[in-house]
Amino acid sequence: MSDIPTELVAMRHSIDNLDQALICLLAERFKITQKVGVLKAERGLNAADPERERAQIARLRQLADTTGLDPEFAEKLLTFIVTEVVRHHERLVRDRDEA
Amino acid sequence: MSDIPTELVAMRHSIDNLDQALICLLAERFKITQKVGVLKAERGLNAADPERERAQIARLRQLADTTGLDPEFAEKLLTFIVTEVVRHHERLVRDRDEA
Repeated sequence: MSDIPTELVAMRHSIDNLDQALICLLAERFKITQKVGVLKAERGLNAADPERERAQIARLRQLADTTGLDPEFAEKLLTFIVTEVVRHHERLVRDRDEA
Repeated sequence: MSDIPTELVAMRHSIDNLDQALICLLAERFKITQKVGVLKAERGLNAADPERERAQIARLRQLADTTGLDPEFAEKLLTFIVTEVVRHHERLVRDRDEA
């Protein structure tokens, strides 16, 4: 551990701070999508919404580009998050059907 | 589009705001890991650091748990991001070797 350059230690500290902020934002995002899931299950709306997802991806790719983030990575990440959200929504519907 | 409940429209707006914040944080994170990659390539340090990654995962799982985010999801997401970072670091080393 002692041979880690000081600059690397400082950069890792910033990465750790950003990761904590990311986790907190994601926790808030999932609290909202959880409510979306309940609403969709109550109203019989589909768990996934391909049109909405396409619009989200296009917007975030554009934002990523302006911030200097690789738009391909931004799209892969959003797809990763949305897949998890849809999995939650489908589980909600299953739980309701079984109740 | 007109049959989307008002509550859903409002929640989607919040999700979009959070996604924009996530993209901005990730752009900053990649700016730092880019610098980390250059430093590692200069010093001949390994692109991946399994011990560091294990510590990051343990800390973020714990944080996720306190914020109400699924720790499994937090771990999968960090692994997803770190895999992309390591890919960037390895590309840096290849580019240097070829230069």
